[in-house]
Amino acid sequence: MLGEDAVSIEDEILRSHGYSDWSTINIDRLPVAVVFPKSTEEVSQIAKICYKYRVPIIPYSGGSSVEGHFSAPYGGVSVDFMNMAQILTIHQEDMNIEVQPSVSWLEMNEKIKDTGLFFPIDPGPSCKYNELSGMILTCSSGTNAVRYGTMRDWVVNLTVVLADGSIVKTRRRPRKSSAGYSLNSLFVGSEGTLGLVTEATLKLAPIPAENGVAVVTFPTIKDAASMAAEVINAGIPIGAVEILDDVLMRVINRIGNTPRKWAEVPTLFFKFSGSKVAVADSIEQVQKIAKKFRTIDYHYESDPVEQKMLWSARKEALWSMLALRKTDGHVWSTDVAVPLSRVAELIEVSKKDLDSLGLFGSVLGHVGDGNFHETILFEEKDREAVEQCVHKMVQRALEMEGTCTGEHGIGLGKKEMLHEELGEGPIELMRSIKKSMDPRWLMNPGKIFDYA
Amino acid sequence: MLGEDAVSIEDEILRSHGYSDWSTINIDRLPVAVVFPKSTEEVSQIAKICYKYRVPIIPYSGGSSVEGHFSAPYGGVSVDFMNMAQILTIHQEDMNIEVQPSVSWLEMNEKIKDTGLFFPIDPGPSCKYNELSGMILTCSSGTNAVRYGTMRDWVVNLTVVLADGSIVKTRRRPRKSSAGYSLNSLFVGSEGTLGLVTEATLKLAPIPAENGVAVVTFPTIKDAASMAAEVINAGIPIGAVEILDDVLMRVINRIGNTPRKWAEVPTLFFKFSGSKVAVADSIEQVQKIAKKFRTIDYHYESDPVEQKMLWSARKEALWSMLALRKTDGHVWSTDVAVPLSRVAELIEVSKKDLDSLGLFGSVLGHVGDGNFHETILFEEKDREAVEQCVHKMVQRALEMEGTCTGEHGIGLGKKEMLHEELGEGPIELMRSIKKSMDPRWLMNPGKIFDYA
Repeated sequence: MLGEDAVSIEDEILRSHGYSDWSTINIDRLPVAVVFPKSTEEVSQIAKICYKYRVPIIPYSGGSSVEGHFSAPYGGVSVDFMNMAQILTIHQEDMNIEVQPSVSWLEMNEKIKDTGLFFPIDPGPSCKYNELSGMILTCSSGTNAVRYGTMRDWVVNLTVVLADGSIVKTRRRPRKSSAGYSLNSLFVGSEGTLGLVTEATLKLAPIPAENGVAVVTFPTIKDAASMAAEVINAGIPIGAVEILDDVLMRVINRIGNTPRKWAEVPTLFFKFSGSKVAVADSIEQVQKIAKKFRTIDYHYESDPVEQKMLWSARKEALWSMLALRKTDGHVWSTDVAVPLSRVAELIEVSKKDLDSLGLFGSVLGHVGDGNFHETILFEEKDREAVEQCVHKMVQRALEMEGTCTGEHGIGLGKKEMLHEELGEGPIELMRSIKKSMDPRWLMNPGKIFDYA
Repeated sequence: MLGEDAVSIEDEILRSHGYSDWSTINIDRLPVAVVFPKSTEEVSQIAKICYKYRVPIIPYSGGSSVEGHFSAPYGGVSVDFMNMAQILTIHQEDMNIEVQPSVSWLEMNEKIKDTGLFFPIDPGPSCKYNELSGMILTCSSGTNAVRYGTMRDWVVNLTVVLADGSIVKTRRRPRKSSAGYSLNSLFVGSEGTLGLVTEATLKLAPIPAENGVAVVTFPTIKDAASMAAEVINAGIPIGAVEILDDVLMRVINRIGNTPRKWAEVPTLFFKFSGSKVAVADSIEQVQKIAKKFRTIDYHYESDPVEQKMLWSARKEALWSMLALRKTDGHVWSTDVAVPLSRVAELIEVSKKDLDSLGLFGSVLGHVGDGNFHETILFEEKDREAVEQCVHKMVQRALEMEGTCTGEHGIGLGKKEMLHEELGEGPIELMRSIKKSMDPRWLMNPGKIFDYA
């Protein structure tokens, strides 16, 4: 129906659409085919065929998820949106943009910068891989969330192909609406289990006139996390506050991808943005708070080139860790989020767990949201110890009234943890919603929760 | 089961729980009983009995909704949460608060002000009536939405009693989570059709150090709306921008509830908040933009008492309109929202419609969100003309890619308009979600959409 080029059953293609080096979990099974639709109408046709023959459908865009989101535990068809990567319309005065699913947010921001607007969600450093469809379906957030919120806050409407191939558009194009259930919010974060997003209208924000970056170093990670919490409590309108532990700073130096040597101690990276006056004011307020804590050094930078250099350490963090991975080594990248008052304690104890198990891992966090990542490099023989370590961190997060994931999502890898977090009631509710929308259980089956 | 005092079948009580003077729509039927539970457990027991005997359940808190949200088209039991109005726990460092459903947001803010925190959603002037349960279920917003978003953005978790009486808690207490579907976002705005909220944890924000109010007057409503849009486009972090038309300013003068005489022309009310420096900076930027437009006067006020006086006009707007209502007269209060670039045009043409039909109405808007209200005073004989006028405004809003309601919700009154807005597909999706969670169709039936 879609032509020869639109379908692939090549081994290598199947493997790249069912297996990920970045994932905490991989399985033996692969999709049976990968399809490359060019339009919403084609996606609808694919879904209709799969519905008729009861074949699972798995959406694929950037492929950078880490919990096995695009794996194929029941085989089925992987729908790769690479041929749907167009910006459709920019509504400059309305401050929104209509896009296809595989637009890269970073490329989009580059293309639209002359409008004075940008899309402010800034997920992870794997920029070239982060495409909007995946960001919507996993409810991405990242460094800017403390200022701009998460993906859920930036969706105006979605065009979605449902399990039976029907096409729905969730809303027209108002900035705000209270007309009926928020289908937007339901599809955002649904990990492809409810439908395939084939178009989206996203809000944009004005590009701030001025930016600033400050780097503050501390003797302990607890001092760093505590200062970050106080800045948030004070309501200072910062752009971002990221925490990097001593291990990560050492790794960044060792790999040397940034043009500077860093103190190998716990470090906060602050981003500021707004008018010139507002940025200067926020910096002053943050400096005042810094004085109340045990800091080693406070370095502020207003020059844009130097700022980029400073922020580069934050952006290179993951790559530097990955560069240390041995040829047959693995990486486990996970995240949790807890109430603000507990984040310092949880980071500290989680680092001790790593040490006591003899594991090599680092901590990096969107600490203003109480959300942080642990990245562990390991060999196959240590897999069990790593799993134990991660599980311990999640359990502690839950005891602190937190969540098993702040932004990575559940996928295949965290289903049991979701169950520990919420108990059966809320999951049964999610399951009944899915069953009502996907009675044949074909949309990315096996993710978030199981059929029963 | 709950004791004699917990149930009422008095005529007057039934009427006050099924009829509203403020509503655009009222029906002949009333609930058969009103119950007053004291705990989640009691709500669960009520739901279990209603489930067994297939009796509809309708939640009632502040009773200030305007689209017949708490009317009883199928009879049933009205659940009044007046005995569940406690603040349960304040988590100051985590910046959130656990509350029962009938806490009034305004009283809550008064009670917690010593923590330095506040709840920033500011719905309408009917303060004493706005309680958190209703605000959650209709996804309230109001004047501060342009800065702080809507109710959906401020919910950390909800405890909900479902149709069969089972109790679910949607999340623990993280600030951010991507763990499974966002049940929070689904319940917020569901108008009681999916379950009864019996507890909620809400985010709080730091009270800004400084506030400012500016009042700008214009020769035409279009000039006013256009300037507001430009302020938003420029990304100036204002606290609020409200538009009041000439009719409303005249009414406010006539009723005289504010200690000042106002120019009877289209007026923008700006609110500023933040640090002293940031507020001064925002004001300067707004003043610069004002110079590009045809303004009559620009008045800024930094003194808190005078600020309160200035803002009082905004707060008195609805009451002043209502004061003009004749003994046997009616009020029709409605709202729409459209993309920013269209709001000036829609307000202008809607006012012309009012005039040409000889109706007395005013316009008031959260213009930074593209959202505005029309309030019409009328006698019974003019009901049809009013309906026609409102319908015309909604249709124009939809043609402009807007929505039939920005914050009032659908209730009984806007079901057809919702259908015009979204078409059958998305509504069928909402319906299937409801059926999966409420198979006996007992939770506030007849609201948002019908069974088939």
